[in-house]
Amino acid sequence: MTFKLILLRHGESEWNAKNLFTGWVDVDLNDKGRAEAQRGGELLAENDLLPDVLHTSLLTRAIHTAQIALDVIGRPWLPVQRSWRLNERHYGALQGKDKAATLAEFGEEQFMIWRRSYDIPPPAISPDDQYANFADPRYGSLPPDARPATECLKDVLIRALPYWYDRIVPDLLAEKTVLVAAHGNSLRAIVKHLDQISDVDVVGLNIPTGIPLLYELNDDLTPVTPGGRYLDPEAAKASIEAVKNQGRK
Amino acid sequence: MTFKLILLRHGESEWNAKNLFTGWVDVDLNDKGRAEAQRGGELLAENDLLPDVLHTSLLTRAIHTAQIALDVIGRPWLPVQRSWRLNERHYGALQGKDKAATLAEFGEEQFMIWRRSYDIPPPAISPDDQYANFADPRYGSLPPDARPATECLKDVLIRALPYWYDRIVPDLLAEKTVLVAAHGNSLRAIVKHLDQISDVDVVGLNIPTGIPLLYELNDDLTPVTPGGRYLDPEAAKASIEAVKNQGRK
Repeated sequence: MTFKLILLRHGESEWNAKNLFTGWVDVDLNDKGRAEAQRGGELLAENDLLPDVLHTSLLTRAIHTAQIALDVIGRPWLPVQRSWRLNERHYGALQGKDKAATLAEFGEEQFMIWRRSYDIPPPAISPDDQYANFADPRYGSLPPDARPATECLKDVLIRALPYWYDRIVPDLLAEKTVLVAAHGNSLRAIVKHLDQISDVDVVGLNIPTGIPLLYELNDDLTPVTPGGRYLDPEAAKASIEAVKNQGRK
Repeated sequence: MTFKLILLRHGESEWNAKNLFTGWVDVDLNDKGRAEAQRGGELLAENDLLPDVLHTSLLTRAIHTAQIALDVIGRPWLPVQRSWRLNERHYGALQGKDKAATLAEFGEEQFMIWRRSYDIPPPAISPDDQYANFADPRYGSLPPDARPATECLKDVLIRALPYWYDRIVPDLLAEKTVLVAAHGNSLRAIVKHLDQISDVDVVGLNIPTGIPLLYELNDDLTPVTPGGRYLDPEAAKASIEAVKNQGRK
């Protein structure tokens, strides 16, 4: 018996295309992102991987990616749970800023620390920042003291793991094929946990957009194959290279 | 304190347009239906009625209606629960049949009994009927003995009420604005219950597609205004007339 977990990073958003830090800003998919989601659904169909349940973040780009992919496989009716715990990393004061301009202003070293260090978050967002959006009703049940103003990957891992254990694992143990539609960093956190990647090595981990990543898990929820398997390995490889070059347009 | 319940019947489907009995057959919206759903969302926005939670059936046309309307109001992230208990009435052996042809074949009296009688269901669907679809995975957790092969409105009421009491009422009592995206007959069942409409009078009750119907409910969950309020009363009136004339094209 193995359990099946499918991780799906949302397709390109309007701000990905503009090379802006997005984080918790609720930017929708663009046409390319919708096409990636469509292709993600087709890959599920081609591999006869039909999820039984869906988990998403509270951000539109992940929700729409899942909706498009599930329409392709005729499963818009899946039970779904959503949580801020699957949200993208909160990029703090960088949200809405141009990546290339940030790189030019602060230099390569600081830029890479903010983008990739495991445990150093960017400066916190100011409550009066236009992208702070503290009154957003989707977080209405999250008390202010629990709501991040900036996050490093370690912070994401700490807030995502309770959701992994409390919501996703029970579905897996019930032998459901689970689809998680989320973001670069919330999925990196889950993969770090699954593959027991060190704090140092996770810095080099990129997850491509729109390509379902299948993990078959043993009884103890360790991966049968470390790193899982992308349903389109060639496209995944090409995409990972492209992500590495973000901020250097 | 009043509680807010919004009922939304899905827009026109590909089979509504063809005048076929649909029931549990999973037919998607057509372009008109998608436009109705869009208008439904705009009516919510214009009336500043922003639901906090969503309940849908397991049928694509209701799910897509809700998705389109929620995109209009920027709330695709709503928590959602789905259930077969909100499905359209199962039309038994009539599913997939042309309404006008059925009227011609069986006559006005039998036709109206099947369409409108409170407690006489159409003939049961045969397990080998192309529209029986007993292996549909969305009903995988519903044992065969609980799965309808035909239903009258009374049957729909009996299976919808547990969902009303167990899932919808708790959300209302938690002071959430609740959106229910469902079908002509599952919504008629809920309205019959809310307005305490008699078995005789419910025969004349029609609910138009795509026009949100707002019920404000007292502490004891009785309607402040019997019949609730359509967010576009003129369009509702016109649509109700049109529904009455179905089968007579």
